[in-house]
Amino acid sequence: MILRRLAAVAALTVLPISAAQADEGMWTFDAFPAAKMRADYGWAPDQAWLDKVRAAAVRLTGGCSASFVSAEGLILTNHHCVAGCAEQNSTARNNILKAGFVAGTRERELKCAGQQAEVVTSIRDVTPEVKGAVGNAAGEAAVKARNAAKARIESAGCPDKTTTRCQVVTLYGGGQYKLYTYHKYSDVRLVWVPESQAPQFGGDPDNFNFPRYSLDASFLRAYEGGRPAATPAHLTWTARAPVDGEATFVVGNPGSTQRLYTTEQLAMQRELVAPMRVATYSELRGRLINAMESSPVKNREGHQTLESIENSLKVYIGLKKALDDPAFMGKIAAAEADLKAKSGNRFGNPWSDIAGATQAYRNLYLARYFALPRGTLFNYAITLVRAADERAKPDSERLPEYTESALPLVQKQVLDARPIYPWLDRLQTEWSLSKAREYLGADDPETRLLLGQESPEGLAARLVAGTKLADPAYRKRLWDGGKAAVDASTDPMIVYARKIDANDRALEQKFDELVDGPVTAAQAKLADARFAAYGSTIYPDATFTLRISYGKVQGWNERGTPVPTRTLMGGTYERATGAEPFDLAPAFIANKSKINMATTYDFVTTNDIIGGNSGSPVIDREGKVIGAAFDGNIHSIGGNYGYDPVLNRTVVVSTAAVEEALKNIYPAPGLLAELRRQKSGVGKL
Amino acid sequence: MILRRLAAVAALTVLPISAAQADEGMWTFDAFPAAKMRADYGWAPDQAWLDKVRAAAVRLTGGCSASFVSAEGLILTNHHCVAGCAEQNSTARNNILKAGFVAGTRERELKCAGQQAEVVTSIRDVTPEVKGAVGNAAGEAAVKARNAAKARIESAGCPDKTTTRCQVVTLYGGGQYKLYTYHKYSDVRLVWVPESQAPQFGGDPDNFNFPRYSLDASFLRAYEGGRPAATPAHLTWTARAPVDGEATFVVGNPGSTQRLYTTEQLAMQRELVAPMRVATYSELRGRLINAMESSPVKNREGHQTLESIENSLKVYIGLKKALDDPAFMGKIAAAEADLKAKSGNRFGNPWSDIAGATQAYRNLYLARYFALPRGTLFNYAITLVRAADERAKPDSERLPEYTESALPLVQKQVLDARPIYPWLDRLQTEWSLSKAREYLGADDPETRLLLGQESPEGLAARLVAGTKLADPAYRKRLWDGGKAAVDASTDPMIVYARKIDANDRALEQKFDELVDGPVTAAQAKLADARFAAYGSTIYPDATFTLRISYGKVQGWNERGTPVPTRTLMGGTYERATGAEPFDLAPAFIANKSKINMATTYDFVTTNDIIGGNSGSPVIDREGKVIGAAFDGNIHSIGGNYGYDPVLNRTVVVSTAAVEEALKNIYPAPGLLAELRRQKSGVGKL
Repeated sequence: MILRRLAAVAALTVLPISAAQADEGMWTFDAFPAAKMRADYGWAPDQAWLDKVRAAAVRLTGGCSASFVSAEGLILTNHHCVAGCAEQNSTARNNILKAGFVAGTRERELKCAGQQAEVVTSIRDVTPEVKGAVGNAAGEAAVKARNAAKARIESAGCPDKTTTRCQVVTLYGGGQYKLYTYHKYSDVRLVWVPESQAPQFGGDPDNFNFPRYSLDASFLRAYEGGRPAATPAHLTWTARAPVDGEATFVVGNPGSTQRLYTTEQLAMQRELVAPMRVATYSELRGRLINAMESSPVKNREGHQTLESIENSLKVYIGLKKALDDPAFMGKIAAAEADLKAKSGNRFGNPWSDIAGATQAYRNLYLARYFALPRGTLFNYAITLVRAADERAKPDSERLPEYTESALPLVQKQVLDARPIYPWLDRLQTEWSLSKAREYLGADDPETRLLLGQESPEGLAARLVAGTKLADPAYRKRLWDGGKAAVDASTDPMIVYARKIDANDRALEQKFDELVDGPVTAAQAKLADARFAAYGSTIYPDATFTLRISYGKVQGWNERGTPVPTRTLMGGTYERATGAEPFDLAPAFIANKSKINMATTYDFVTTNDIIGGNSGSPVIDREGKVIGAAFDGNIHSIGGNYGYDPVLNRTVVVSTAAVEEALKNIYPAPGLLAELRRQKSGVGKL
Repeated sequence: MILRRLAAVAALTVLPISAAQADEGMWTFDAFPAAKMRADYGWAPDQAWLDKVRAAAVRLTGGCSASFVSAEGLILTNHHCVAGCAEQNSTARNNILKAGFVAGTRERELKCAGQQAEVVTSIRDVTPEVKGAVGNAAGEAAVKARNAAKARIESAGCPDKTTTRCQVVTLYGGGQYKLYTYHKYSDVRLVWVPESQAPQFGGDPDNFNFPRYSLDASFLRAYEGGRPAATPAHLTWTARAPVDGEATFVVGNPGSTQRLYTTEQLAMQRELVAPMRVATYSELRGRLINAMESSPVKNREGHQTLESIENSLKVYIGLKKALDDPAFMGKIAAAEADLKAKSGNRFGNPWSDIAGATQAYRNLYLARYFALPRGTLFNYAITLVRAADERAKPDSERLPEYTESALPLVQKQVLDARPIYPWLDRLQTEWSLSKAREYLGADDPETRLLLGQESPEGLAARLVAGTKLADPAYRKRLWDGGKAAVDASTDPMIVYARKIDANDRALEQKFDELVDGPVTAAQAKLADARFAAYGSTIYPDATFTLRISYGKVQGWNERGTPVPTRTLMGGTYERATGAEPFDLAPAFIANKSKINMATTYDFVTTNDIIGGNSGSPVIDREGKVIGAAFDGNIHSIGGNYGYDPVLNRTVVVSTAAVEEALKNIYPAPGLLAELRRQKSGVGKL
């Protein structure tokens, strides 16, 4: 899942969760804190407003958020959410990622492999059913009972798996279970993207920074039955500039936060997880940068992967910084002490339960993390091997990733045609095998299982060179052939996946027994303790499910210097150096005289978001879309652990800038007309 | 300086310095703790023993240690200390790094560029002179006065700069100053190296690990006046296997430890220095791995650089782990509290002084670290630019690196002919410029100075492609031409070095004023406090100057499992997989039947060493050499901050294995005869 993380570096002022602070919170739609917002803003949306917005909010299974902005399935999201699709539709001769793409007509809209758009249609509390099914079970038995209950509820909730998807979402780490039902659009096509240099101006150096000059926007279209989907419940487009201080809502799918972690869990992040990720991602980044410099083809093919690695790396570096900050850790410890004091013995000792499970997790972590090598081709292989095994079992006994409700998306992702770059797979697989050996040790049994008598370099080269899994027809043959076909396959990648499958399954089982089971039980108690202590002023950690955040258009002070609320399009020209990544996109040069330089380009708000929120509509009080969130500032990275109202900011590309681009830079008159039609259309709130 | 770090991961049992624990300590030769050793071992060397050993101990300016082992200038050191020389003397057709090299005759011995061998001839306390010259000065003024005094003392101490070198060494961070006088050998040649796969068996995965199967040994020879140097004061060679529990001495030049750091200084390492190093070195490693995979030539040319980067990276990962260990940091804090309690107010408040200066250092650190890009060609350029400026000044006003006593080695290192690999320079320069932008920010004034309107990629390519500094004759012209020649040069690398020189000098000045000055003054007080509290049971932090450590041949327990004291040569064959880096060196395959499999290969001792000790002779009670230290175990990395007698081990290649190789694997009968002649020769102790 490619997630931009839009989160917050913990500075001295960071406020770990007890009761939510001003503008803090990624709220579920069934628990919007209207009273709290009304107290702060003198106004809050009513249920009708929330329902309408919810109906227009889109989750993209690639790891992003989005929104419908026309009645004909038109979707607004970020460029970086569809860059993979643009790259997959590019060739050496027709590099649409680089050159941009305007479909012009419906017929020319381009399919995005593996991408699916999903809209929440209902949320139902199933906590009693799930908790009841678990009963007094513990460890792995509890995890199995829970997963079986979830599979049962999901299956019963969505008999029609072609247009609906059901997901039981675990909130508060096990405190609540909610059944989310989605209408799904499994045919999503590319409509409009600017040249990649327009959104990527400033590149990695500017990522998580502001002021910013990025056109990180794009349009997709949802199809049903081969035709543009009818989406009457869309947002209304407005190209007006944001007003300083005005209220803004971000509606999207924040991927993951750990604001409810105990200090023991954070210590494991600090001492084990984050350092390993920083070191290994940095090395992968270096390998990829060097490979991409060796040829223009590799430069194009590796581009999106590099962007994603650099984004993740910056997040982990920021998280580690937050975790290494004694003031930050001190505040979290203080919040934990407060909850302990308020709770007494009424909820058992969940902190101690979690501490024990975390020690077990520390012992398992590296083996589990390195049990399966990385790479698209290997992913195909292990998915085919497992799907064959799991499909033969009753739904309630399957791994959660392969239940009937989960299977259609898995199948789509395995079978959708998409280009494979063998050099990139080889690079990633080699890297991950080499890091497995480094972190586990050359003589570790898992290393020996992974490598046998081969080297990471030799093994990766052999598997990638020998496999036929790049061919979607071959994948389909194995999928359709099921266990017999997979077992009979002599494809080296399949043979390898079969060989190492059992070890990873055994580690997952241990994890369920020693970590997931006890931690879920303890977190359920912690959730009860928090509700008892702080009432409904708390929200669950992010789970890549639909949330709403409220805030306002506002800059911040960076070490004494005010950072402005917005940039103007004219600022791009002042900042450009001509050298990558500060070189202007060609169309920005060619159309300079036409562009209204005073157009608001990007702006910042106080909304509380995190990776996965990329592409989220930024909505005004009237329910109109005024931008698409695409990043956080550097202070937002520690937001994984706590929101800081003083420094944490969301970075948004304005609809004003997008409309300017549709008019004068990457002209798309049909698209513009479609957007404008909606201003008085059925979608109006 | 390529330093293998042979240091100790802080585990729960680590003992930060207060009074030295069993076997702990890197002692100076003028303060050997004979009484303490006698108490523990029932025996200790006398002054005559120490003097003889000292006279045979060699410092290699490339960053290693070594020893004379014949009367004809023969030097024993590690393979990894001379691999750079082997690589520089290799060509695509004649890759002696890979194939190994046996000179056979004196005439065929190969010069090592930039390498110099140095032997301590006297140590004199100059503390009163230096402290007197500083007087009541503070900040930058104190640093200048100190440096001027050091330059004066060094210049007066060594009127003959052709065969001697003088260095005033700062001990206890400013508590003591000692004048070390060296006899120097600036012509050092390669005599014998095995195939690189023999010492590098196990590669990076085995680095800092044990059991180990590495022939990390080599021989050099010191020349004077074009002839083998006369070195009557050498160690006696013995090829006997070590005995478990026997006393061992390691004599060499540990590079750097921070055992006397305050908790504030360690916090800066933990929060700022170590994370940045881990991330940036990891990326450099990745870039280099990928580049080396692209061609056999690059594979050869990049080999030594990669090994050095991977070694440094492993050290920083280990250091970060130690610094992230709450138990470890807790013990250091406890030791600091103990010293504070014993000291009262008698020494002022050096801890608070250091805390203030460390805050200033945090603010300066990144700018200073990134002020000059990396790369051999850039190093030539900045050295030529600075040498031209500094040589025009009186000795006492120069930068310390360019005083009359320091200049001969600088000149040798700039002018010695050595191959340059433009792709490698470009890679390193591009990487460091790109990391400067990442850590300082794209809009930082220093980033703008470094890059102007160019990208890191474009600038590095332009400078490396355009410079003539790879040509030693051109470097000599600029060196000899002095300031006029350097100022007139239009060589792009020289032009660039001139452009960025002033910024780095200004940062150094700030550093002297805000950090070096106050920290040195405070550390002098801390040294006084320590001597008052713990008497002479403490030793100074490592300074890449001669030290002696005592210990014994002993294994350790790794999580309950005993690790044996030694490996046998036969074990190599059992561990080999055939795949890199666990593939046997060809001569090990070819000569398998001749090799005595029961020969002790590598062994471990409790000696306290650190990076820079590589190549140090391991000496028995009789003063005979029984091995060469080449690594520490994984627990030794935290040894930077504290020695752990339970886990910290030195890894040694035995003379028994080296002699077996000289006989049966890489035969060198002449060399063997030369070593054996010494058994009854003048060098006998």
